[in-house]
Amino acid sequence: MYRTHTCGELRIADKGKKVTLAGWVQKSRKLGGMTFIDLRDRYGITQLVVEADAAPELVATASELGREFVIQVTGEVLERESKNAKMATGDVEIKVESINVLNKSVTPPFTIEETSDGGEDLRAKYRYLDLRRPPLQRALALRHRLAHEVRNYLDSKGFMEIETPYLIKSTPEGARDFVVPSRMNPGTFYALPQSPQTFKQLLMVAGYDRYFQIVRCFRDEDLRADRQPEFTQIDCEMSFVEQEDVLGMFEGMMRQMFKNALGVDIPDPLPRMSWYDAMDSYGSDKPDVRFGMKIHDITDDVKGHGFGVFDGSEYIGAIAADGCAEYTRKQIDELTEWVKRPQVGAKGLVYIRLNADGSVKSSIDKFYTPEQLSAIAAKAEAKPGDLVLVLCGPKRKTQTQLGVLRIEMGNRLGYRDPKVFAPLWIVDFPLFEWSEEDGRFYAMHHPFTAPKPEHIDWYYSDKKEDLERVCANAYDFVLNGTELGGGSIRIHDAQMQERMFDILGISKEDAEYKFGFIINAFKFGAPPHGGLAFGFDRVCALFGGQETIRDYIAFPKNNQGRDVMIDSPSEIDQVQMDELFLASTFKK
Amino acid sequence: MYRTHTCGELRIADKGKKVTLAGWVQKSRKLGGMTFIDLRDRYGITQLVVEADAAPELVATASELGREFVIQVTGEVLERESKNAKMATGDVEIKVESINVLNKSVTPPFTIEETSDGGEDLRAKYRYLDLRRPPLQRALALRHRLAHEVRNYLDSKGFMEIETPYLIKSTPEGARDFVVPSRMNPGTFYALPQSPQTFKQLLMVAGYDRYFQIVRCFRDEDLRADRQPEFTQIDCEMSFVEQEDVLGMFEGMMRQMFKNALGVDIPDPLPRMSWYDAMDSYGSDKPDVRFGMKIHDITDDVKGHGFGVFDGSEYIGAIAADGCAEYTRKQIDELTEWVKRPQVGAKGLVYIRLNADGSVKSSIDKFYTPEQLSAIAAKAEAKPGDLVLVLCGPKRKTQTQLGVLRIEMGNRLGYRDPKVFAPLWIVDFPLFEWSEEDGRFYAMHHPFTAPKPEHIDWYYSDKKEDLERVCANAYDFVLNGTELGGGSIRIHDAQMQERMFDILGISKEDAEYKFGFIINAFKFGAPPHGGLAFGFDRVCALFGGQETIRDYIAFPKNNQGRDVMIDSPSEIDQVQMDELFLASTFKK
Repeated sequence: MYRTHTCGELRIADKGKKVTLAGWVQKSRKLGGMTFIDLRDRYGITQLVVEADAAPELVATASELGREFVIQVTGEVLERESKNAKMATGDVEIKVESINVLNKSVTPPFTIEETSDGGEDLRAKYRYLDLRRPPLQRALALRHRLAHEVRNYLDSKGFMEIETPYLIKSTPEGARDFVVPSRMNPGTFYALPQSPQTFKQLLMVAGYDRYFQIVRCFRDEDLRADRQPEFTQIDCEMSFVEQEDVLGMFEGMMRQMFKNALGVDIPDPLPRMSWYDAMDSYGSDKPDVRFGMKIHDITDDVKGHGFGVFDGSEYIGAIAADGCAEYTRKQIDELTEWVKRPQVGAKGLVYIRLNADGSVKSSIDKFYTPEQLSAIAAKAEAKPGDLVLVLCGPKRKTQTQLGVLRIEMGNRLGYRDPKVFAPLWIVDFPLFEWSEEDGRFYAMHHPFTAPKPEHIDWYYSDKKEDLERVCANAYDFVLNGTELGGGSIRIHDAQMQERMFDILGISKEDAEYKFGFIINAFKFGAPPHGGLAFGFDRVCALFGGQETIRDYIAFPKNNQGRDVMIDSPSEIDQVQMDELFLASTFKK
Repeated sequence: MYRTHTCGELRIADKGKKVTLAGWVQKSRKLGGMTFIDLRDRYGITQLVVEADAAPELVATASELGREFVIQVTGEVLERESKNAKMATGDVEIKVESINVLNKSVTPPFTIEETSDGGEDLRAKYRYLDLRRPPLQRALALRHRLAHEVRNYLDSKGFMEIETPYLIKSTPEGARDFVVPSRMNPGTFYALPQSPQTFKQLLMVAGYDRYFQIVRCFRDEDLRADRQPEFTQIDCEMSFVEQEDVLGMFEGMMRQMFKNALGVDIPDPLPRMSWYDAMDSYGSDKPDVRFGMKIHDITDDVKGHGFGVFDGSEYIGAIAADGCAEYTRKQIDELTEWVKRPQVGAKGLVYIRLNADGSVKSSIDKFYTPEQLSAIAAKAEAKPGDLVLVLCGPKRKTQTQLGVLRIEMGNRLGYRDPKVFAPLWIVDFPLFEWSEEDGRFYAMHHPFTAPKPEHIDWYYSDKKEDLERVCANAYDFVLNGTELGGGSIRIHDAQMQERMFDILGISKEDAEYKFGFIINAFKFGAPPHGGLAFGFDRVCALFGGQETIRDYIAFPKNNQGRDVMIDSPSEIDQVQMDELFLASTFKK
């Protein structure tokens, strides 16, 4: 028994107790012969005092303690003279009677405090020290709590967590697989799963009815910022369900997670928005609805007044930036440059100031009367003092640009408080996307996504415009401008599946080659089923009020897919290579 | 909404209700114009009746239903005339008013019943159909329940589940790694973890204090029966603990799992047995203590009576097989051949019959008087009617052979009831094993296992016999003759670790190369820590009363490491090979 209490546990009620604590030396300081030591563990910090008149060996030991030494101390709980209201243990201190140095520490390469002085690379290399810092301890504690809430909720709803294999088969669809050479089966490879999609659908065929798994997935992609080659999903599937059943079940899960982990109540039921409305009003299929500043279609209002740029555009849209009428010429120029960056891609930016006195001023004054400009501003729901920002071009593209601009203005105006949570469902996605380039349809989700029952006539129609308006039985869970999860009702009917391949221009042979195994399984009585998956790393980050996932993963990889702490990936022995019947053709 | 109730839910109290069910046709039979259908889902089976005078279309639909068709039916709950007490729903049946065929099924390749007529290979290929069978449904339900119990218990004790990476670094120690070629870092490889050992120790260095994870592990070994290349562990580690703390914590976990999943009470505290006692009395470090038939050392009793085989043996041991004195000559010959098989490896078998009348008869009658034989039988704790079986040779080797024989006799005598549970801890393992061949010590567990504090003087002694008697702070959890888990208190002191490498003949350079990374992390204040890991697949199988793990894994691999259902591992595209900078040197 190394301790009687943790470092976060003692209170004024424990006064007079003889206790033993163990932990790390956070800091130590001398004050008039006395030594004060902050002793830290996962549970908190407790102040220790070695009095000036203590035994000389004790005073000597105390004075030799360095940062991050691991010690065990015994002493009496005293009431502090100067209490620290910021600490849970701030009313007490321990009058130390003995110190046992359990382990020394060399000086850590950066400070282990709420914020560290170490750079990102250094902290990644010494991740096990960075993980001692309170923000990372809180992040991993939140992750544990959320996983536990997910499991408790789904267990209470009759879901079974079923583990699916990690050594599976490489599939020709989707992103790039990580592969694993087989020693026992020379020249062949396993693949690591990008998701357990096939297996969860097989479990439905097998009659498991309600499945979930918190599971690692792998994608060998060129890593964009904040992507990891291995990531964790909450993967779920249900049988004998319609879309309504799935949405109800999983917004219930999210509601319980918000309530139990954060004490936050989210609306019941959650708001829903069609994909079309999301694109039209927010320029995004993952709208941040914490704030308004919606996009408005002003095409009909501005066309035909002799302004060539507008007259030649398919679509003209506007947002009203709250209280930004005071923006200087310089600020507007900067914003214009910002939207013209390749990441946004607009050709230019038109503005209309709606001044506090109701007058208007615009970069397109010469084409429109003040009354016309006022009417446009009104259409954009601008109030006096607002700045109307206008972009034009092809419809969806321009809406997307306005969506990006809206988020930027939301950031600038402080509308994106990470402690405010505005979840919603996006529904009614188009089932197909038409590619002008290829002259064919693509599946917007995947070729097993079912059409909405009420659109079934269009689904079997031969007309392109009918197919374009077929909506999918698909849904995304969106929080604060981030897609946290999504899924669909799957096709379980052979004829409907054949029609899908038909529309996508996938031949019978191709379908057999790419999906033959699952199509075959479906011949043995596949139930109607559907499900979804949440990106758990991102769920944790957003619940924690952060945008980046790295601090919510204990041992993440960097943007080159490397773990710099353990120095991986790395070369392996020639013996290992030989056993796997592999020759590496790269040059050393 | 596809159903109002599941197929396991309706009772006599629901009589008269109009209900909708959905599920699979288990079987259907005609009886005097009526059609009886057993409708199955994960929750149970409900009997449906289509009456002879029902609408002709309904009768027609019912008569066309095949096995494993997926249907939805609506009807009224009736009380059955002939009730079936064996079924939870056996008091009721549904008078069907409508049938909606949700999906047809081709004829399954084997029967989907409690026991199937399908061979192992066929069932493996159609695993998704085999998984519909009740024993497999129960197995996976038990697995889910046990995982949930583990998590609830450990969460309640302040443990955090922390996910560690799957793409790690190949290490030169231990079994063979599966490796994953890196595309982004040409010519280098990740490795899949054999266990999260390094990471969990780093988490202790990082101050997480109580960690656990139910986690997949990977070993590229030649597969013995009932081994899987990927398997699941309950992996745990604690800081500031001694052996006693770890044992108490995890027998508490097991106690809760037994109680909540099986309704079984296991002893509190659990029995403990030293490794030495286990070897001496059971010839195994994982003794099955559901029955006696202990091994007894009769060396001193039988040596020196002129029987050369015994006189030349280091050790002679005996077990008394209950009531087997009646064994015929033929049975004893068969048993003799059995122990001489290479899997057991004994040179021969000596027997002493202790007849019911107290007389003795032995294969070594001419070397011993009846009184001497009786005394030997008494030493083996034989009762009248027992058969004493004797093996001889080097001590540990012979004890092990007697242990195998004991288990065999336990099986033959029906002493190994899978519904009886006899868990215990094995403790006080030797820290080192001396290899005569190599003339050096090896670590019995691994080189980070701490010696028992009371043996510390021997640990620093230069004498071989001192080092041989150092016990490790290590422990195994054993159930019914199977090791379900094990672990140790780790060395956290640099000097003690250096001494360990010294004893094992590992040079400073070698230690740096093999373990440098973790040794370096330990310089920054490693707390005293220890932990253990349980083999979760085997825990599930034993709790389920089975010896083989395959039915407790949803999608297992066969003995060649293949998943015959998805046909993996398999060849991959040359494009994929090229992207990974790999050339496979195997011949097609």
